[in-house]
Amino acid sequence: MSKKIAVFDSTLRDGAQGEGISFSVEDKIKIVKTLDELGVSYVEAGNPGSNPKDMEFFDRIKNIKLNNSKIVAFGSTRRCNISVEEDNNIKSLISAGVDTVAIFGKSWDFHVTDIIHTTLDENLKMIGDTIAYLKNLGKEVIFDAEHFFDGYKNNKDYAIKTLETAVLSGADCIALCDTNGGCFPDEVFDITKFVCEKFNVSVGIHCHNDCGMAVANAVMAVYAGADNVQGTFTGFGERCGNTTLSTVIANLQLKHDYICIPSENIENLTHVARKISEIANFKLSDIMPYVGKCAFAHKGGMHIDGVSKAPHSFEHIDPSKVGNERKFLTSEVSGRSTILSMIKKIDPSIEKNSPETDLIIKKLKEFEYNGYQFEGAEGGFELLIRKTLGKYKPFFELVNFKTIGEQPYSEGVSASAVIKVIVDGKAEITAAEGNGPVNALDKALHKALEVFYPALSEVHLTDYKVRVLDGKTATASKVRVLIESSDGVDNWSTVGVSNDIIEASWIALVDSIEYKLIKDIEFKFKTYL
Amino acid sequence: MSKKIAVFDSTLRDGAQGEGISFSVEDKIKIVKTLDELGVSYVEAGNPGSNPKDMEFFDRIKNIKLNNSKIVAFGSTRRCNISVEEDNNIKSLISAGVDTVAIFGKSWDFHVTDIIHTTLDENLKMIGDTIAYLKNLGKEVIFDAEHFFDGYKNNKDYAIKTLETAVLSGADCIALCDTNGGCFPDEVFDITKFVCEKFNVSVGIHCHNDCGMAVANAVMAVYAGADNVQGTFTGFGERCGNTTLSTVIANLQLKHDYICIPSENIENLTHVARKISEIANFKLSDIMPYVGKCAFAHKGGMHIDGVSKAPHSFEHIDPSKVGNERKFLTSEVSGRSTILSMIKKIDPSIEKNSPETDLIIKKLKEFEYNGYQFEGAEGGFELLIRKTLGKYKPFFELVNFKTIGEQPYSEGVSASAVIKVIVDGKAEITAAEGNGPVNALDKALHKALEVFYPALSEVHLTDYKVRVLDGKTATASKVRVLIESSDGVDNWSTVGVSNDIIEASWIALVDSIEYKLIKDIEFKFKTYL
Repeated sequence: MSKKIAVFDSTLRDGAQGEGISFSVEDKIKIVKTLDELGVSYVEAGNPGSNPKDMEFFDRIKNIKLNNSKIVAFGSTRRCNISVEEDNNIKSLISAGVDTVAIFGKSWDFHVTDIIHTTLDENLKMIGDTIAYLKNLGKEVIFDAEHFFDGYKNNKDYAIKTLETAVLSGADCIALCDTNGGCFPDEVFDITKFVCEKFNVSVGIHCHNDCGMAVANAVMAVYAGADNVQGTFTGFGERCGNTTLSTVIANLQLKHDYICIPSENIENLTHVARKISEIANFKLSDIMPYVGKCAFAHKGGMHIDGVSKAPHSFEHIDPSKVGNERKFLTSEVSGRSTILSMIKKIDPSIEKNSPETDLIIKKLKEFEYNGYQFEGAEGGFELLIRKTLGKYKPFFELVNFKTIGEQPYSEGVSASAVIKVIVDGKAEITAAEGNGPVNALDKALHKALEVFYPALSEVHLTDYKVRVLDGKTATASKVRVLIESSDGVDNWSTVGVSNDIIEASWIALVDSIEYKLIKDIEFKFKTYL
Repeated sequence: MSKKIAVFDSTLRDGAQGEGISFSVEDKIKIVKTLDELGVSYVEAGNPGSNPKDMEFFDRIKNIKLNNSKIVAFGSTRRCNISVEEDNNIKSLISAGVDTVAIFGKSWDFHVTDIIHTTLDENLKMIGDTIAYLKNLGKEVIFDAEHFFDGYKNNKDYAIKTLETAVLSGADCIALCDTNGGCFPDEVFDITKFVCEKFNVSVGIHCHNDCGMAVANAVMAVYAGADNVQGTFTGFGERCGNTTLSTVIANLQLKHDYICIPSENIENLTHVARKISEIANFKLSDIMPYVGKCAFAHKGGMHIDGVSKAPHSFEHIDPSKVGNERKFLTSEVSGRSTILSMIKKIDPSIEKNSPETDLIIKKLKEFEYNGYQFEGAEGGFELLIRKTLGKYKPFFELVNFKTIGEQPYSEGVSASAVIKVIVDGKAEITAAEGNGPVNALDKALHKALEVFYPALSEVHLTDYKVRVLDGKTATASKVRVLIESSDGVDNWSTVGVSNDIIEASWIALVDSIEYKLIKDIEFKFKTYL
């Protein structure tokens, strides 16, 4: 029978310890929703005690309904020689207002005596008091046994005693941490097995990748009986990163009889990994197992020949199982069937083998080659399909625009833009000021077009992201701009690529406006029918 | 007693199958020399049969004396139904003129019948004939049993028979390949153990990282008795890459009693990994175990505090053992000691409890609150310290600048910038064109200042990154710009934050220039003392 494994994602907490990773509250909420949709069991979202900014997040997340994920607040056991009630970090933790908490405590005797400078006995009390207190408040408590494996190797009896204390105090799960990432798969297996046989609670595994074996260690721990895997979805984390959950989920669920997430969601693994990377503005490694752009890319002639004869000759799984694609056939990200479903929205008569489908895939490849990415920019992709199918008519013609940035600037406005457009033979010239040239241009374009299309006043941009594609040429690098828009009813996103950030933004802005106008026309058309 | 493990590097052959990897003959020679110096046993350098360009390499390498490494030419068993002597690929292989060859042949029955379309018996003859022929010519022969693990799982008897044939024909080493990268550590251990017990020759292990476990699989195979580890030094390779040898070497030699390379060379691992990446023009992953820039980077305050008290509290090994270094990331979550070590570089008299330290920490928090991030922008942080300590004098005064972006544009230039600066009472006004306003401003600023500071002509930007901090206000959002600069001797990075991308870039550009000028003055000052 399949065994259920709880997936515990710490992208927002331990992942944020990685260099260059920092999340806004908005980013955090988007990632929570994404992981919830995928069916992850726990999302560890922050440490209210050490990071006061997290409070805004915990306040906002209370009002968002989640279907699969429990939100976890992370904190330490009480400090030594004070009562739990007095501990400010515990107070912050409680004020986060979530039902599940992860509490880390020391399991390595050396850390107790030499790092936090207390007695072995007091450390046990810190663990016991804290967990008992939180259980008393009705919380689900996961005990993160920090440095458990190092502790076990140094002083097995004491390390086990810390777990025993946690379990006796009511911990719902004891998570064994290889905090320094120095353990090997065989030790992780043996030690986890010992723990699983000794205690009758859920056992978690938390690994780091300092020896390049975090995924294998997590898998071995599951073999040994662990039923809760901690990690970060794309491997973000301090030093060499945490266990990459997207890899572990695929390994356990596609190659073994474990259930980590609802099976119908496995094909979203690639999409979710890319989305989280986009939100974090951090490039997903092309060679990441299962979900990377190159995970199923074949270069060797014999391999391509083999895969063409029988895919499993050179592929360990069918890439579509995780929503990825074989690369030498089609470079599009979501596979032919996803693309077809988008084409059918615009022209239901087109089939998988229609020449139009081939043409659109060719166009898509061309755009991707030039740095476009339509993952998370479906609005832009819809316009590309329309243009390719000839189901598109421009709504305006740009005569010219000019943006001016100035320093020093007065009255808080550092840029202005002048624009001239033509709609149905009528010209409109106008100007606007803004914070920077893109903002000024955005305002000027809206101002000019609202004269002809008043509905555009409903549109506002909800997100604006910039990604430099090739750092080597520095300020002349290619940039990709991703824009999210909303009219209060729908949300859509568009994308532009250029060496000039203003041009890249312009492309995405124009697509956003045209998407809105087409949407409104189609709606009217349907209403009048 | 220590066991010797032969390291078999295939960066130049299997590594070149990775997307975006291609080597010139010059690159190959540099990499061979680097690996030879490190003490790698085998360097697989090419496939003369399938890549005729490799011949030039084999010609040139003959005249280069190597101290530790044997050069290996790679090829297939003879094709079916012809004699070995007639096979052109075998002819090419021999004409490479090296003493050691790696020959791959099929071990998975399905591949024999369905991919190369021959009989199981003929495949055995192909293996036997080829190896016997090459042994007869006095070559050392490594037999790469392609898809061995998949073959073993599908038809154990036949897979073993392919090895038996190789051994009976004189193969010096049989390398077990997980060609599709789908195997798990426990299977690799069990199957390798079976093979090692059955055959009395050297056993190699060749893994791919499709399940994120190549390193662990290689380690488990060594536990099971394999004494030859194939991989690529930094993990390059088709799809998700090959076993990362730098990680395996460190794992086996620093944490177990195996000898992979001369022990005095272990401290060159980081240097070699970075050098190979440089030669391949491929960014080494910052989070790569042991050798990555962040492999020993600490961000959490408690981790930094722990490492300061006792390095092994949060480090699995001493970073200097592999030639890497500890790094404390500068962020509001990082502790006082990191910041102090940077302050002391500028004023060694300042102590942990000096009021200046408090002042700088307060400044840092203020800047971070406003969206700055100094981790990875240590140059910018140094300037912040100088400014706070009053150890700073501006090098120029900006009178004003203006950037102009235009559409449509002519001659490929979409923006221009005009700038006026004053240095020592003398004004300079100039202008430049560029791809976008930031590029134009960058050029104009350099042009204006080089009149006064000719050394600035040595500076060029090596990276330019943009991060939008708060998507909610869209194109008026705050952006953070990170710039990396180099003058050919040093590299430094600086950061700027503003609602206006031009202003954010400007701040980082100015800091970059001032960092360079201060650096040069200090160097002269030291020289004159």
